Amino acid sequence: MSTEQCNKRTLMDYCPDIKVVDCTLRDGGLVNNFAFTDEFVRDLYEANIKSGVDYMEFGYKASKELFDPKDFGKWKFCEEKDIRAVVGENKTPLKISVMADVGRCNYRKDILPKKDSVIDMVRVATYIHQIPAAIRMIEDLKKKGYEVTVNIMAVSKVNTEDLDAGLRLLCGSSVDVIYLVDSFGYFYPEQITKLSQKYVEAAEASGKIVGIHAHNNQQLAFANTIEACRMGVSLLDATVSGMGRGAGNCFMESLLSFLKNPKYDEIPMIRFVENHMLKLKAEGVVWGYDIPYLLTGILNSHPSTAINFINGKRSDYCNFMQELLDVE
Amino acid sequence: MSTEQCNKRTLMDYCPDIKVVDCTLRDGGLVNNFAFTDEFVRDLYEANIKSGVDYMEFGYKASKELFDPKDFGKWKFCEEKDIRAVVGENKTPLKISVMADVGRCNYRKDILPKKDSVIDMVRVATYIHQIPAAIRMIEDLKKKGYEVTVNIMAVSKVNTEDLDAGLRLLCGSSVDVIYLVDSFGYFYPEQITKLSQKYVEAAEASGKIVGIHAHNNQQLAFANTIEACRMGVSLLDATVSGMGRGAGNCFMESLLSFLKNPKYDEIPMIRFVENHMLKLKAEGVVWGYDIPYLLTGILNSHPSTAINFINGKRSDYCNFMQELLDVE
Repeated sequence: MSTEQCNKRTLMDYCPDIKVVDCTLRDGGLVNNFAFTDEFVRDLYEANIKSGVDYMEFGYKASKELFDPKDFGKWKFCEEKDIRAVVGENKTPLKISVMADVGRCNYRKDILPKKDSVIDMVRVATYIHQIPAAIRMIEDLKKKGYEVTVNIMAVSKVNTEDLDAGLRLLCGSSVDVIYLVDSFGYFYPEQITKLSQKYVEAAEASGKIVGIHAHNNQQLAFANTIEACRMGVSLLDATVSGMGRGAGNCFMESLLSFLKNPKYDEIPMIRFVENHMLKLKAEGVVWGYDIPYLLTGILNSHPSTAINFINGKRSDYCNFMQELLDVE
Repeated sequence: MSTEQCNKRTLMDYCPDIKVVDCTLRDGGLVNNFAFTDEFVRDLYEANIKSGVDYMEFGYKASKELFDPKDFGKWKFCEEKDIRAVVGENKTPLKISVMADVGRCNYRKDILPKKDSVIDMVRVATYIHQIPAAIRMIEDLKKKGYEVTVNIMAVSKVNTEDLDAGLRLLCGSSVDVIYLVDSFGYFYPEQITKLSQKYVEAAEASGKIVGIHAHNNQQLAFANTIEACRMGVSLLDATVSGMGRGAGNCFMESLLSFLKNPKYDEIPMIRFVENHMLKLKAEGVVWGYDIPYLLTGILNSHPSTAINFINGKRSDYCNFMQELLDVE
């Protein structure tokens, strides 16, 4: 749907092309090292189906040459047999997604032809300077038969000329979806308005669509996601209770409540929170908005320093801010 | 500043007419029954001055005939002597505000002429059907010499015709500021866009300005506040760490970081969080986004049922949602 068409809708309408992508296992896995129980994963799969979610991302396709399987839960690697143990042949409307980082995925070997895989979509995560390498992956994955997205990370640190050049290259590739990714939770909604316009215009001209992946450093992940939606962005990422690296992501519960397409139902997701997310929090798994993430967000910095600060049980926020300003 | 002028600014500019109102003691007092220590109040006053905040609201001017002083902290009543014990003659740029609810304040007796008071601004909180009574208060308070705002509460439950009629009445009064109040945390930013336009157009035509007071039920309090700001709303309410009834308010830390006027500095406020808010949370004072508030928000309901649910240590969210749907 074009920006123009979407601008005509009211809050009682819906754009039928909007699709919701659950990234709980993938972005949330960065919080707990992918240590989800099998019951958690099965129940999340069921909740996604019942809630009408369109895609469920199971995790990463990480190279076992770079990452030792002893150090991570299985969703760091998303082996075919592990996904099938949950979804069987996945005879459901819910599509299966995995993420593959440029330079960290042995995609030629580890990603099978689509006919041999239950995976539907591969999301290629790239930094701006890796776009030529990303395109080589994209073409391989498209030839294998997958839906393919490209997620340009940390775009708040990319200058406009480089971004325009990157978008041009990607629009010339076979990729299906180009993602606007606010890795650092830096953007305000009015910046998302303009960036969404840029992405949607570029994508539409070459028959592609746009997705958004937001972070909650400034408690704007949901606001930014629905603003992008208003501007014609079609694939919306969210995680249950916002579970994701650092400040986390757009809350699935909020997003499903916002979307008016009757296929979506937030109740099964809220029941999943009751049954699983409260337990996870009680066990001490920590994510979500906090002052250190606000500070890295407004300073357009990687959240790793804030994660270390919080893991170190520190609360001297003002010292932390001065440390951030020193290294900027 | 007009909507038009504000629409011309970029994120590097600032509108000099923007003013920040700290409501921590007043809306936060609804969380802990106004049981703030004197040290908390003094340090908050100092932090507000250092941060460049424009107004500090100390609490309510509640009638002691309706509310027994034994049941509340002193900021439920905001006696002149109690405010002066903190601020002296308040020879600072920070102005002092109190809130007076229509029908709950003995304003003729309890609010002194301005020449005898250290209070600068009185905010009259009204439901739509009380506007004639609110106007009687407004005229009394203006005659006494105060800056006066009127805060139309629960506007998400008011139909358009009644709202238009209410705004017309208020525009004919002596009030200085008309507040857009999202009591239930119901609105999305695109609704705030339209409402802000309506309020600003009505107010400008009669030489008044507009304020916003948002609640965080859908984690949109900050997003809605900066959207209103973009549309020409001038007085922006916030509380430290979002402390306020139920899901709380727009976070002062985020708002000060967003505003580009160099008079604002978020650091003293973040230090206040370090020194006071973490302790408050550790003592078990509970506020902020949670699923029950999301549900009352999306259902446009008063948060009291969600507050009871949380105080009752319940976590059966789906039952709670069905209860809400039953009473709607």
